[in-house]
Amino acid sequence: MSRRMIGEGDSPLVCAPLVGRTEEALLSELEALLPESPDAIEWRADFFRDLADGGAVVDMARRIKELAGDRLAIFTIRSRREGGQTSSLSEREIIERCSSVCRESPFEYVDCELAVAPPDIERLRDIAHANGSRVIASYHDFERTPDEAFIVGKFLEAERLGLDVAKVAVMPRCMEDVLVLLGATLEGGKRVSIPLITMSMGGLGALSRMIGGAFGSSLTFAAGREASAPGQLPIGELRSLLEIVRRSRSLNPSSSP
Amino acid sequence: MSRRMIGEGDSPLVCAPLVGRTEEALLSELEALLPESPDAIEWRADFFRDLADGGAVVDMARRIKELAGDRLAIFTIRSRREGGQTSSLSEREIIERCSSVCRESPFEYVDCELAVAPPDIERLRDIAHANGSRVIASYHDFERTPDEAFIVGKFLEAERLGLDVAKVAVMPRCMEDVLVLLGATLEGGKRVSIPLITMSMGGLGALSRMIGGAFGSSLTFAAGREASAPGQLPIGELRSLLEIVRRSRSLNPSSSP
Repeated sequence: MSRRMIGEGDSPLVCAPLVGRTEEALLSELEALLPESPDAIEWRADFFRDLADGGAVVDMARRIKELAGDRLAIFTIRSRREGGQTSSLSEREIIERCSSVCRESPFEYVDCELAVAPPDIERLRDIAHANGSRVIASYHDFERTPDEAFIVGKFLEAERLGLDVAKVAVMPRCMEDVLVLLGATLEGGKRVSIPLITMSMGGLGALSRMIGGAFGSSLTFAAGREASAPGQLPIGELRSLLEIVRRSRSLNPSSSP
Repeated sequence: MSRRMIGEGDSPLVCAPLVGRTEEALLSELEALLPESPDAIEWRADFFRDLADGGAVVDMARRIKELAGDRLAIFTIRSRREGGQTSSLSEREIIERCSSVCRESPFEYVDCELAVAPPDIERLRDIAHANGSRVIASYHDFERTPDEAFIVGKFLEAERLGLDVAKVAVMPRCMEDVLVLLGATLEGGKRVSIPLITMSMGGLGALSRMIGGAFGSSLTFAAGREASAPGQLPIGELRSLLEIVRRSRSLNPSSSP
């Protein structure tokens, strides 16, 4: 497997989430996932029982990356506000954990919500970059799909802040909303030069996880042993589907009817 | 297999084209297709060498339907103007062949291009309905994707003419065009009550053949032994993909992240 960073290659990376609460659960989850060869794993550390213990988090990150090997590793503490688990950590402490993982583990990516105060985002960005990590700027709306201009605005904001990848995950209320997300992704690809990750969540949006690559989304989340967000497909299913989409797109569009 | 008519059920029908030039070729093509269980077959009679011979066409239609059994059978003479094969038949003769197939064979559907003169369309419609057949009103553009209003206009035109299904197949020049076709399909579903069949062709549009059902397209064309239009996938591949899309859509959209 030749490693691709987010935004490289002609098909989106497949990322599997790790949502275990304990070291044992995480390691067994990871062992079950690896044979399915995800391109990336995202450790959703907001599920981790020992999140309050900075040393435990760094130790766990190192163990995960050691097992994950060449697969990209993304460190994420999703706030409750954006769909994550309850956490007793303050925003400042969350940034502290993310910074420690950048400094003391070989994780390639760290997630930072765009709703975080800009000075904190910039501090994390500088620490990440100084340690060879990249920052995924994320925005989630589990209630609705904002309009195209708003979504594109999030991509622009991420780029303006000097972050490395922009991620937008929104909930559709109708199929038109799914088209809005796909259209915003296309438009974003013209307006910013950083890679984008986008998805329309839930049952209505599930197809965006399959075809988003064709509109410029660089990574798609599969369900691991458990899904971390509504609408995720099992890795194997998602992979074979992406392969069909990739091949079908390589058809000569002007071939005779 | 319980037979569904076009527009029935929660997932699009899979239709395979027959494009043989001779009786022998058609029968062998059909025998190869049937084990893959397409829901429908479309006989593209514009490829048929003996198209000028009205009796041969009716005989062939009967043989095809006999072998196809419960599968829906669609009779189509695609004009050269809309991407079909060269034919020495006049528009009047094409309508004549279609009428004979309605009268003298058990084909369930006959295709009629919306570009045909309205009196001829109405004549074919009346003959089809008198013989228990339904008419698919079709519009093709192999060069470009018209805007949403134009596409919806074609659906409205089909309904106004009393036809039974409206089909629009257009060529995208960019991914935005694919979204236009999908958006027009959604809008059409609100504006007309007849079933719709839509697709964005070629490599760029191939994904519309996979996910079009979620936007209201009732039938999708797979490649048979040969593709009849650019972007068609093999039946087996298309079927497993439609099944994944169908299952993913049945997810509870409000399930917790």
